Amino acid sequence: MNSIAFPAPVASVDADLRRRAAAVIPGGMYGHQAAKHLWPGAPQFIASGEGAVVRDVDGREYIDLLCSYGPIVLGHRHPEVEAAAREQAMLGDCFNLPGPRMVELAERLTGIVDYADWAMFQKNGTDATTLALTVARAHTGRKGVLMATGAYHGAAPWCTPIPLGTTPGARADLYNYRYNDIASVEAALAACGDDLAAIIVSPFRHDAGLPQELVEPEFARYLRALCDEKGAMLVLDEVRCGMRLGFGSSWAGIGVAPDLSAWSKALGNGHPIAALMGIDVLRPAIEKIFTTGSFWFSSVAMAASLATLDVMAREGSVARMHTLGQVLWDGLLAQAAKYGVDCSLTGHVTMPYLCFPGESDWAKTDVFAAACAKAGVFTHPRHNWFISAALSDAQMAQILEATGEGFAAVAAIGD
Amino acid sequence: MNSIAFPAPVASVDADLRRRAAAVIPGGMYGHQAAKHLWPGAPQFIASGEGAVVRDVDGREYIDLLCSYGPIVLGHRHPEVEAAAREQAMLGDCFNLPGPRMVELAERLTGIVDYADWAMFQKNGTDATTLALTVARAHTGRKGVLMATGAYHGAAPWCTPIPLGTTPGARADLYNYRYNDIASVEAALAACGDDLAAIIVSPFRHDAGLPQELVEPEFARYLRALCDEKGAMLVLDEVRCGMRLGFGSSWAGIGVAPDLSAWSKALGNGHPIAALMGIDVLRPAIEKIFTTGSFWFSSVAMAASLATLDVMAREGSVARMHTLGQVLWDGLLAQAAKYGVDCSLTGHVTMPYLCFPGESDWAKTDVFAAACAKAGVFTHPRHNWFISAALSDAQMAQILEATGEGFAAVAAIGD
Repeated sequence: MNSIAFPAPVASVDADLRRRAAAVIPGGMYGHQAAKHLWPGAPQFIASGEGAVVRDVDGREYIDLLCSYGPIVLGHRHPEVEAAAREQAMLGDCFNLPGPRMVELAERLTGIVDYADWAMFQKNGTDATTLALTVARAHTGRKGVLMATGAYHGAAPWCTPIPLGTTPGARADLYNYRYNDIASVEAALAACGDDLAAIIVSPFRHDAGLPQELVEPEFARYLRALCDEKGAMLVLDEVRCGMRLGFGSSWAGIGVAPDLSAWSKALGNGHPIAALMGIDVLRPAIEKIFTTGSFWFSSVAMAASLATLDVMAREGSVARMHTLGQVLWDGLLAQAAKYGVDCSLTGHVTMPYLCFPGESDWAKTDVFAAACAKAGVFTHPRHNWFISAALSDAQMAQILEATGEGFAAVAAIGD
Repeated sequence: MNSIAFPAPVASVDADLRRRAAAVIPGGMYGHQAAKHLWPGAPQFIASGEGAVVRDVDGREYIDLLCSYGPIVLGHRHPEVEAAAREQAMLGDCFNLPGPRMVELAERLTGIVDYADWAMFQKNGTDATTLALTVARAHTGRKGVLMATGAYHGAAPWCTPIPLGTTPGARADLYNYRYNDIASVEAALAACGDDLAAIIVSPFRHDAGLPQELVEPEFARYLRALCDEKGAMLVLDEVRCGMRLGFGSSWAGIGVAPDLSAWSKALGNGHPIAALMGIDVLRPAIEKIFTTGSFWFSSVAMAASLATLDVMAREGSVARMHTLGQVLWDGLLAQAAKYGVDCSLTGHVTMPYLCFPGESDWAKTDVFAAACAKAGVFTHPRHNWFISAALSDAQMAQILEATGEGFAAVAAIGD
């Protein structure tokens, strides 16, 4: 068992903020950004960041391998993105009507995502996944949706991973399959019967706390063919992967195009934006439904997104993230071998998930992440990490020093 | 019937943007900011704004009586709010963890809203109303929710005003009552039986396209007593009214405190933020549910909200909006009388709703709004307007000149 002593809480800005937060925020903090999900001794608050570095409220700096759980692709406060946001803010953001940036962004995205004929914008990834199902149901006149067991498609009542507080009705008409398992899709389809409106699927299996699984191309092609056969909509949930696996559809490489896709996170390099994209045949259904949000038409996040996409296209940021991710991936495996640690690395090189096979108490992952943090690198013990294009070669070397410390610490506690 | 000739479309930046939008945005535009909801001849795109003035993409200026459908309380690009946002943006916005602004904002809001013990933050008003029901259901272990017929609580599947694309299950466990009608609440309760988790209600009845209705204090007190008796949660939907009717709870004046309240719009003077506030007894339930969003912990909108609340407290912005709204209200009624036009003005002085009794084709409201727009004032023919504290006395005089033109145009077309 874990005999490593984690640092005891000390008087600090973080501790003071935690005390204040406990008084006015339920549980002190909630959601994916509650520090309890990180390593023991992790901070709860971050004060600032620049490029690939974040600084907690007590002044400790970390090279960022979590990238705000996905939104940061170009590094924090990327100069060109922030300049575009500031320039738009000088004109205004949230008006009675949208501005030109909305049209420009829809044009840009439909140019980048090959199958997309149109785009609509929201604020949360959950807005986009939820709207995708609404559009699919409006178009097909059916209710049934097939989704993978354990997949995260957001935190709305229909999909939040903890059903407490939701109603059975909100989670009805959903049929679970296992990712990459065609037979399980057939079983889910049998349960759904003639009511299939959509199949929702992520570009790869990236469930939290479990080894990740890349999509098998024949599985993706099977889903596409099944939707074609049944007149159902194939919905690709790009919220976490979008603009990381590729600059465009994450499934472009395997030649499978969905009918609808939900995007968010990386689109605006941290600015709050989400998008639903889809094909022309869905337009009449969309014109009959009602969906909106107070800030869905705001221009600043759209200007930031345009700049993010400009930089990514010009600098080949996705290729850079692939290169950096491969260096990290290879380095981690070499270190695990060197220290004789049984380590599993799964997922995509730009979004690696590290765990230690056989452990059920997270002791090793906690020790690993804590050692990385002590050595100045911010990882996550139970969630995939994210690469940003802002990482320099020198920072990559620092990261590998830190992960070396992590493996040494894991090796030290033994099995 | 309406014989007024509305302006024909002409070559313009707006027309060009509409053509481009039609190619890449379903319906050319969707949601509440589609120009089809405004007067014939209205623009679809706004380029910029400052204080109480917005400018469309063809350079026409309007004094803003719609305030982005609610978010703008201090005027567009308020210097102090924008400075706070820029200052925070220099530190960063969206990180792996929240920042100090989140604690400060929760402290500030619980200080302003008398019954609130805690606050949680989101991006959309719909996020907050939806989360309110989840919390109420998790706390009570029940499913049933009473909501007013025709009330707008957002655009999620459970509440979007057009059910196409939603499932019966998503809209189950909801029981309609009529606003201010105690007997109808009793009937809804009878249908719900022992399963009452919550009653959701807006501070006044502000359904789109219908005369508004202020709450009868005995109705509010009845709802409070009923929830107490049944162990159910009273949820006040402050998304549209919050920080306009009062600086704090919209029902503070009638002495009725809800258990939960959903806020958004005015909180950040246009920056994207929403909040759920509530009482301490709900904390254990909240700690057991899961809710989150990629941008819910971002600091820039929170810094903007802190500055907005600072300015409002220091300058008495709510009182200023009440004064301005009363001047407008009185002026409109005097003009209607002068022109012999049967005009109904309902709702709250800071959020007036104008219509012409007896008409079902919107001909008069369209003519009125078009005349206002021609005279440089942006209103809405089928939705309540919003006052901002940025309006100067000179602008108020301009507004009343424009509304005078509106009544003259309505009088000219007769009945």
